[in-house]
Amino acid sequence: MKTKMTEAFRKYEGGLFSEVTKADVSVSISSLEKEGIDLLAWADPFYPDPSTPPHVIEAMVKAIKEGGANHYTHPIGNEELRIRISKKLKEYNNIDANPHRNIMITPGSDSGLYFAMLPFISSGDEVMIPDPSYPNNFQNVEIMGGKVVPVPLKEEYHYQININDFEDRLTSRTKMIVLTNPNNPTTTVFTRRSLEALAQFAIENDLIVIVDQAFEFPVFDGREMVTLASLEGMWERTVTVFSTSKGMGLSGFRVAYIVAEDHIMDTYYGSAVSVVGATNTFSQIGAIAAFDNDEYTKEMEASFLRRRDMVCKILGGIPGVHVEKPESGFLSWVNISKLGSGEFITDYLKRNAKVIVNSGGHYGEQGKGYIRIVQGALADEERLENALRRIGNALIELADNKGITNF
Amino acid sequence: MKTKMTEAFRKYEGGLFSEVTKADVSVSISSLEKEGIDLLAWADPFYPDPSTPPHVIEAMVKAIKEGGANHYTHPIGNEELRIRISKKLKEYNNIDANPHRNIMITPGSDSGLYFAMLPFISSGDEVMIPDPSYPNNFQNVEIMGGKVVPVPLKEEYHYQININDFEDRLTSRTKMIVLTNPNNPTTTVFTRRSLEALAQFAIENDLIVIVDQAFEFPVFDGREMVTLASLEGMWERTVTVFSTSKGMGLSGFRVAYIVAEDHIMDTYYGSAVSVVGATNTFSQIGAIAAFDNDEYTKEMEASFLRRRDMVCKILGGIPGVHVEKPESGFLSWVNISKLGSGEFITDYLKRNAKVIVNSGGHYGEQGKGYIRIVQGALADEERLENALRRIGNALIELADNKGITNF
Repeated sequence: MKTKMTEAFRKYEGGLFSEVTKADVSVSISSLEKEGIDLLAWADPFYPDPSTPPHVIEAMVKAIKEGGANHYTHPIGNEELRIRISKKLKEYNNIDANPHRNIMITPGSDSGLYFAMLPFISSGDEVMIPDPSYPNNFQNVEIMGGKVVPVPLKEEYHYQININDFEDRLTSRTKMIVLTNPNNPTTTVFTRRSLEALAQFAIENDLIVIVDQAFEFPVFDGREMVTLASLEGMWERTVTVFSTSKGMGLSGFRVAYIVAEDHIMDTYYGSAVSVVGATNTFSQIGAIAAFDNDEYTKEMEASFLRRRDMVCKILGGIPGVHVEKPESGFLSWVNISKLGSGEFITDYLKRNAKVIVNSGGHYGEQGKGYIRIVQGALADEERLENALRRIGNALIELADNKGITNF
Repeated sequence: MKTKMTEAFRKYEGGLFSEVTKADVSVSISSLEKEGIDLLAWADPFYPDPSTPPHVIEAMVKAIKEGGANHYTHPIGNEELRIRISKKLKEYNNIDANPHRNIMITPGSDSGLYFAMLPFISSGDEVMIPDPSYPNNFQNVEIMGGKVVPVPLKEEYHYQININDFEDRLTSRTKMIVLTNPNNPTTTVFTRRSLEALAQFAIENDLIVIVDQAFEFPVFDGREMVTLASLEGMWERTVTVFSTSKGMGLSGFRVAYIVAEDHIMDTYYGSAVSVVGATNTFSQIGAIAAFDNDEYTKEMEASFLRRRDMVCKILGGIPGVHVEKPESGFLSWVNISKLGSGEFITDYLKRNAKVIVNSGGHYGEQGKGYIRIVQGALADEERLENALRRIGNALIELADNKGITNF
């Protein structure tokens, strides 16, 4: 029956018939723990340790005990939650969104991102995607029969947007840009200047822009987090996807939201039941509590900052290794190209440092000489430090064996 | 930007710019309660009243309090839950599924159904869908660029499959059949004879069959519930979508599962993160408790049976109204064509009986002279009976006004 699948789907492998190293899908957590291996490859704060905020626990326990949370929520999402989100959008994103017309809750931002893109993509439509970026950006376009047009982000420009690289790739079939801001895996917070150039390019060429802001806070070192949809002329052509999984630490809740102007949203509302279905009822009640009192995210931010500095200190200066100082969140994007490919190093670190990290090639062609480390994993910072030191020591040994003495 | 959408999406309306009567999407629950209107239009057992089984509450509260349930579950689903499901598939569905190769958990069966179909449908592929059936079956095909081929189910055959009606519509582009079994909205439990004929047709013409078994229990009056995938030659060409929302009463949990042979499943595993994302973590823990001890579903079954008989008693014999005795679940499919269209009657009942039911036209062309009533709604059977009596009285009055005296 596999021969009856579309070309895009035929090539996807889930690991049942081949060795797949993509940590997202094939890793059995319990077996890793038995082997003493740490997983720094899931972008899930403090994974796998307990870290649900107490007031969120309390709100959900109350809702569950009351016994009515087994019922569907309205497919576009809990109304109270949408009202909280509209307040946050105003305060944090400089967006004036009507909770009854511009916001839809989705069961996580993966299906949200897929759904946001879906109505616009027909066979052969070209979609510009910065490379490296989140793997789903590429896979979604393929699934929809579109053509991925990767636009390289360059380390020498600190992964900011160089609009010439977009202009060079423009064709009559270009329909959409998909941007992850801050970028995953590079943690780049796109500057106002980058985004204004992108906005002008999108307006001039009448393009849709889908922006995934799953990692929108925290951003470090006083950087400005600019929401593209808030720039002049962009509200009507930008769909923004947000998440509670990262900066709010509610990954397992599966609560995300799409924000768009109301003509686009009308279509989402009209097709939500088919593509994404309703979102978990008690999760949304937990999310309301989290939005109502998000003080706990300050502690998360402080921890992420310490972890960021820990990575830079431990891995910085290792021969053959270059860590671009993370600008946001809890990831690190590490250039190990002098020591080997991302795939080789990932495998090497699993065996020699007992740590699983992500091979950079999953994030695009530009990522092949990189690894992504999720320093936000593990609640215990000492255990994290230990895992990072094992990575550092293994890389030092590798560099030594290879006779590499500088970056 | 709407002009940039695909043809299928351009026509979907969510109610922001027009009056939409589709109860699934546009109803604001709180405003209905204020107006004293009962909603018998969401297929959600005992909605909106508390009805979570105590042992399920207990399991979830424990998991939430432990604080680790904020983390992602493996995208293919909680391993323990998959093991429970494989046991249930063996006992109830006569299917021997490997929990590590043939089962994937999805965040509800809506996205599960969409995802199950997606890899197979290219532009122009024809998909046979019994009419009436679940609206998503049709909408999913449209979204994917396929061509819907409705195959009428006829009241005079008690909505069973007449394979000639499929054979008549077969072309070289026919690729898939989508079956809801038991059918929603008709509650038809397809007989072994119907399914064997369908299996033979699918095998002879090398078709994929997607079966949605969301309503697989309870079935009434000693009927046999046959799982198509268990018939000879069907395992390799059938993908079955199951749910915990209906017979297990866990709608708001958003836990469903796809079952398929491992070559097909390999592709689902390889693309799950993009299209559906992971499923809620504590919901899956609740679902494990529900599978471990499903005694409570017996009480649900008894209640559904009483409700079924209540509908037949109250609406049976009303001039111009024909209730086909429900064969399963908690829905009724009522022929009101002598009194008016489904749209007219739905609107009439909202105004005159203060009850919202579904207009049959949402379920296909064949449904235009029908309404669907969800007698599974409301915990209190007296309140339900009251709502049904209001429907009955309003229909009697309408028949009287129209001078209709028999069916």
